[in-house]
Amino acid sequence: MSRHDGRETNDLRTVLMEPNYLMHPEGSVLIQVGNTKVICTATIEDKVPGFLRGQGKGWITAEYSMLPRATAERTQRDATRGKINGRTMEIQRLIGRALRSIVDLGALGERTLWVDCDVIQADGGTRTASITGAFVALTQALAKIHESKPFSKFPVTDFLAATSVGIIDEIGPVLDLDYVEDSSAMVDMNLIMTGSGRFVEIQGTGEEATFSREELNNMLTLGEEGISKLITIQKEVLGETANLVGYVK
Amino acid sequence: MSRHDGRETNDLRTVLMEPNYLMHPEGSVLIQVGNTKVICTATIEDKVPGFLRGQGKGWITAEYSMLPRATAERTQRDATRGKINGRTMEIQRLIGRALRSIVDLGALGERTLWVDCDVIQADGGTRTASITGAFVALTQALAKIHESKPFSKFPVTDFLAATSVGIIDEIGPVLDLDYVEDSSAMVDMNLIMTGSGRFVEIQGTGEEATFSREELNNMLTLGEEGISKLITIQKEVLGETANLVGYVK
Amino acid sequence: MSRHDGRETNDLRTVLMEPNYLMHPEGSVLIQVGNTKVICTATIEDKVPGFLRGQGKGWITAEYSMLPRATAERTQRDATRGKINGRTMEIQRLIGRALRSIVDLGALGERTLWVDCDVIQADGGTRTASITGAFVALTQALAKIHESKPFSKFPVTDFLAATSVGIIDEIGPVLDLDYVEDSSAMVDMNLIMTGSGRFVEIQGTGEEATFSREELNNMLTLGEEGISKLITIQKEVLGETANLVGYVK
Amino acid sequence: MSRHDGRETNDLRTVLMEPNYLMHPEGSVLIQVGNTKVICTATIEDKVPGFLRGQGKGWITAEYSMLPRATAERTQRDATRGKINGRTMEIQRLIGRALRSIVDLGALGERTLWVDCDVIQADGGTRTASITGAFVALTQALAKIHESKPFSKFPVTDFLAATSVGIIDEIGPVLDLDYVEDSSAMVDMNLIMTGSGRFVEIQGTGEEATFSREELNNMLTLGEEGISKLITIQKEVLGETANLVGYVK
Amino acid sequence: MSRHDGRETNDLRTVLMEPNYLMHPEGSVLIQVGNTKVICTATIEDKVPGFLRGQGKGWITAEYSMLPRATAERTQRDATRGKINGRTMEIQRLIGRALRSIVDLGALGERTLWVDCDVIQADGGTRTASITGAFVALTQALAKIHESKPFSKFPVTDFLAATSVGIIDEIGPVLDLDYVEDSSAMVDMNLIMTGSGRFVEIQGTGEEATFSREELNNMLTLGEEGISKLITIQKEVLGETANLVGYVK
Amino acid sequence: MSRHDGRETNDLRTVLMEPNYLMHPEGSVLIQVGNTKVICTATIEDKVPGFLRGQGKGWITAEYSMLPRATAERTQRDATRGKINGRTMEIQRLIGRALRSIVDLGALGERTLWVDCDVIQADGGTRTASITGAFVALTQALAKIHESKPFSKFPVTDFLAATSVGIIDEIGPVLDLDYVEDSSAMVDMNLIMTGSGRFVEIQGTGEEATFSREELNNMLTLGEEGISKLITIQKEVLGETANLVGYVK
Repeated sequence: MSRHDGRETNDLRTVLMEPNYLMHPEGSVLIQVGNTKVICTATIEDKVPGFLRGQGKGWITAEYSMLPRATAERTQRDATRGKINGRTMEIQRLIGRALRSIVDLGALGERTLWVDCDVIQADGGTRTASITGAFVALTQALAKIHESKPFSKFPVTDFLAATSVGIIDEIGPVLDLDYVEDSSAMVDMNLIMTGSGRFVEIQGTGEEATFSREELNNMLTLGEEGISKLITIQKEVLGETANLVGYVK
Repeated sequence: MSRHDGRETNDLRTVLMEPNYLMHPEGSVLIQVGNTKVICTATIEDKVPGFLRGQGKGWITAEYSMLPRATAERTQRDATRGKINGRTMEIQRLIGRALRSIVDLGALGERTLWVDCDVIQADGGTRTASITGAFVALTQALAKIHESKPFSKFPVTDFLAATSVGIIDEIGPVLDLDYVEDSSAMVDMNLIMTGSGRFVEIQGTGEEATFSREELNNMLTLGEEGISKLITIQKEVLGETANLVGYVK
Repeated sequence: MSRHDGRETNDLRTVLMEPNYLMHPEGSVLIQVGNTKVICTATIEDKVPGFLRGQGKGWITAEYSMLPRATAERTQRDATRGKINGRTMEIQRLIGRALRSIVDLGALGERTLWVDCDVIQADGGTRTASITGAFVALTQALAKIHESKPFSKFPVTDFLAATSVGIIDEIGPVLDLDYVEDSSAMVDMNLIMTGSGRFVEIQGTGEEATFSREELNNMLTLGEEGISKLITIQKEVLGETANLVGYVK
Repeated sequence: MSRHDGRETNDLRTVLMEPNYLMHPEGSVLIQVGNTKVICTATIEDKVPGFLRGQGKGWITAEYSMLPRATAERTQRDATRGKINGRTMEIQRLIGRALRSIVDLGALGERTLWVDCDVIQADGGTRTASITGAFVALTQALAKIHESKPFSKFPVTDFLAATSVGIIDEIGPVLDLDYVEDSSAMVDMNLIMTGSGRFVEIQGTGEEATFSREELNNMLTLGEEGISKLITIQKEVLGETANLVGYVK
Repeated sequence: MSRHDGRETNDLRTVLMEPNYLMHPEGSVLIQVGNTKVICTATIEDKVPGFLRGQGKGWITAEYSMLPRATAERTQRDATRGKINGRTMEIQRLIGRALRSIVDLGALGERTLWVDCDVIQADGGTRTASITGAFVALTQALAKIHESKPFSKFPVTDFLAATSVGIIDEIGPVLDLDYVEDSSAMVDMNLIMTGSGRFVEIQGTGEEATFSREELNNMLTLGEEGISKLITIQKEVLGETANLVGYVK
Repeated sequence: MSRHDGRETNDLRTVLMEPNYLMHPEGSVLIQVGNTKVICTATIEDKVPGFLRGQGKGWITAEYSMLPRATAERTQRDATRGKINGRTMEIQRLIGRALRSIVDLGALGERTLWVDCDVIQADGGTRTASITGAFVALTQALAKIHESKPFSKFPVTDFLAATSVGIIDEIGPVLDLDYVEDSSAMVDMNLIMTGSGRFVEIQGTGEEATFSREELNNMLTLGEEGISKLITIQKEVLGETANLVGYVK
């Protein structure tokens, strides 16, 4: 049996990133992973939250949201419900944590990086697309500062991208699940890795199911491959700016 | 003295509408008025709020929001603050009221039309662009129903569009203010009108200023002209679907 | 056909204002417009919100509320629901904006004027009665400061009053709608004007209907007349204090 | 030493009650106890909360609020803060509980009595004035039903009034404290009693102080006297309606 | 007729207090009164709320909560509901007020004492057990400071304990009601008293009933006896620390 | 270098579980893992949330909370802040998901299992202790039903326990981190596994760091060992009830 859209088990969907998508933010990108579309923006604010003040270190805060009709059924807005739902909170905490792993907060100085990921259209993998796109927006925003006022150490220390892997009945481990696959997957795992091939975060969940250590290993191998391809695309999109990653004067 | 972007006082900015912008909603459009960009979607739900149940009538609810970086400075999300701010509420009430004026709720039957206007990029006139775009999304969504299950009376009874007019120091009355003009305008007025040239809503505010009846009249004349042009564009975008407006078997 | 309470189309209801209605506030008035009764108070606080600090300018914030049984059916309190409803927010923004148009915030200095309008009994026109009454309370409160510590320019630059006009089936344009008329009106318009006859705000809404430019003109003429009468009453109620309006040393 | 306003230790302030104060509610009264003024209304709804449905019994819910400038300093509205403060909650629970003690909920049938106490002006004793006034509004509202559709047992079984007593330094126990006395009292006690002289509620608090059993007894004696006078006034205000209290066919 | 658990009318349930129950807080106790179990902790923070800053005085804030299954039926968490319910608020205000009556806030200095009472298991009398236990936790926490940095006046000026009394049909006045008794009691009264036998707070409520002055007196006598026993237990539990209460150098 | 408390890298802390810890819940346990103490309760409600009604399936909802002084510094209550923080939400979603993986919701029938985990004292690993304890409380609660009304298939299909593993500088991979270790760990991973040795959830996070695939493998091996020991303890605590796990008539 093969995947419903004809992909091989180790194929990513088509990935497009349109940098400088919006006129106002310091960094912005529209990332498309198949039919999933997310606008990622990065904003730099020249102060930090109270708990960090005076320590010479920066901070990164991420927010994630979906338009009500990003989904097949209309989803009620968090603002209308008066509170952020648990899934949203979990995702924005994940995005922030992932980005902090490849940003040297000391090199950033007393600044806050606000990263906003707004899903325009959802077809599976919105959180991993958000991370992959947010990396580009954030790097662009910091490159803009670097132009006028060079960092002695560019705060972005490595590349960062994310994808999903999972196990589908009668097919086995697959890379980059779309919505149809995600809904029927027995196991769903999100992987976040760096340009140097190290893990930043692994979140694997048996969806009312469980998985063996061997299955886990197969999924990890697929994911490593996919993330490596995503990082190649990031480098193309960033062009010369990509050279700043890991830069130390 | 002339307008900062070279327009005549009675010029609209460039208006573009991309219909069927998203894959999931029944109706969707990306409307651009100059640099202002709004995604408008229409969702049809086969039930009505409790207070209307059993009356054979439909309802229209509109929601409006801006991405945090639609604006020059990042705006905090309503969802994060835990409540919808006053400006947002005012705008979404306005959009819903305007649309209800050209929809025959009886002909709609016991359905709710959810209209979502999400501002991707803001450069003045987001509420009027939302109304003009929402009209297109809503008409498309109803046309989709009409295809499979024709209405004896199509619920949309007339065209509807909106624009702003204002008075700018040393220039006088102008049509379709962008952000720069809006910030410095002495008077700001939003006009919503129908295809038959009647008023649906007038909201004119002296911004820490006042205006005479003659100034009011000059602004109204400018606005009538602009709205007529917007409706011409709506007809082109809708194509054959435009003929359904006002249709009675 | 004539109005249900026998008034001519250009008649206001009976208007009474009882100044110094409460013992604690710097300014307070009970305004009655027919059966509509609103307690308006003005409070002066010697500081401004954060965004204005250090600019030598003042601010005006208005709040509006109705007692649960101001209305025929009991209305749930906003405090019990845990959030302010959209209509309330819209009205308090309107009141604040209107008052700011006739107060010189620079002359006011770094002070906040809190205006509270609490509807004790509602019979149509509560927002316009609130504005008309709030003007009196605010002027009194500032006059109290002026006594002990004269302003070189009294911050109130002009009179301000508001009324409603509308179009009623088989009657046509009428002034100052009560609740019965408001419920059946095809068009409902609130007008706010100054003592010098200039417009501060126009808000006209076709209630699931529309209106022509000629109808608009007829309503404006009625409104101008009504507001002029209201300002005459304000002057009587304020007595000598009225002379401070527009005063420059 | 004597009380600051010249009253004897066992004097109430001047008490006035204006029944049928508002046009809409089934029962309403403006009660004045000295400078304290409270609008009390009673609303009858023909259903009960979910937890009581189908039991043939009624319910009483009380809400209490103060206008922002009922007080010397402006108090922020609960609706603006987005939650009801603890003092307000405590008071509205107290009022509801007190009224339920003299209403036969079975005789009331499946109805909810909503009692709203809105303090227009505060000068001490607002919660006790609310209870004393609410009793009158509630009895009137039930009498109105009784006219058209007589109860076999009138649900109000006894009169009910409330007052405060306290201990003031150098003066000792006093009746009906105003704001000045309340602020400096060492002990503050609210008493709620019935027409037959029985206690419904005693709430005595040493304000960062304590009191002996003898002091307690002296306060109770003062309170009994005061409440008896308040009930005499209630009877006058209610006129013939007073005879319905305790009525059984 | 006798009490359902065989106690005499003037018997307390078995009272146990386990001091230093938790490893982190400055003071903590697990108090058991029959089957009612409450964890009380005291936290000392070296600053005061804004309204007290710079006055050289301290503050005490109490919070009270129940585990969802402290009760026979699961109770929804306040955090899940998004607001604190009225009963909880009433209780935490009561606990704070009671503790402030026996703490010299001046001697405490600019510190805040946070007292947390978390009910692990509820069987009637949770608020009075909370107060009795909180006294011990608070005294321990202050004794810990006193060791390293002796107060010239120990801030705790007297002992403090609380219990309930009530009237049960066919039995009459009883001391320390458990849940079964509380549910059926006609009158329910909470008493808080000091080691010197003075009242701090009396809260007596006829539960849809009323009570005479004689019944009140009988309840007070029972309560005085019970509180005296509770204070004896507190002294044993505190050991030498008990000597600090009322200590002045 | 060795662990700060002398444990081997593959040692769990001392684990104690006290079943039937509370009198009211259907299932309850106090679990202690070193100094971490959590009260876990299970409540069975005979209905399901709306989205599941009529499908013959049950549901499991978990809630997690910490007492304010479970921690070294006092933590503000979610109820006081008016919203649940992100960490709490993430944890309660995790607990619920984990338990659903070993409960056959069809065999459960239309019932909701409420699982409450309240941390009394925190010293690292509160979420994994919660899961391990919740399993016991839930199994007991279902066993209680089974006694009176046997399931044909006992809904608990396998054992379930959780622990943490991590990498500590100069020590390497370790099992079951306490608070001191957790604070300094470079990588922190939570593992949830079944009695049959399959994974339910893996959540590994580089704390502002990253990890290699080999390091991941070493951590997984440690975790498998630890969970196997925890399940042995669960079986002892459950006694005969353990035999019901996986039971099919």
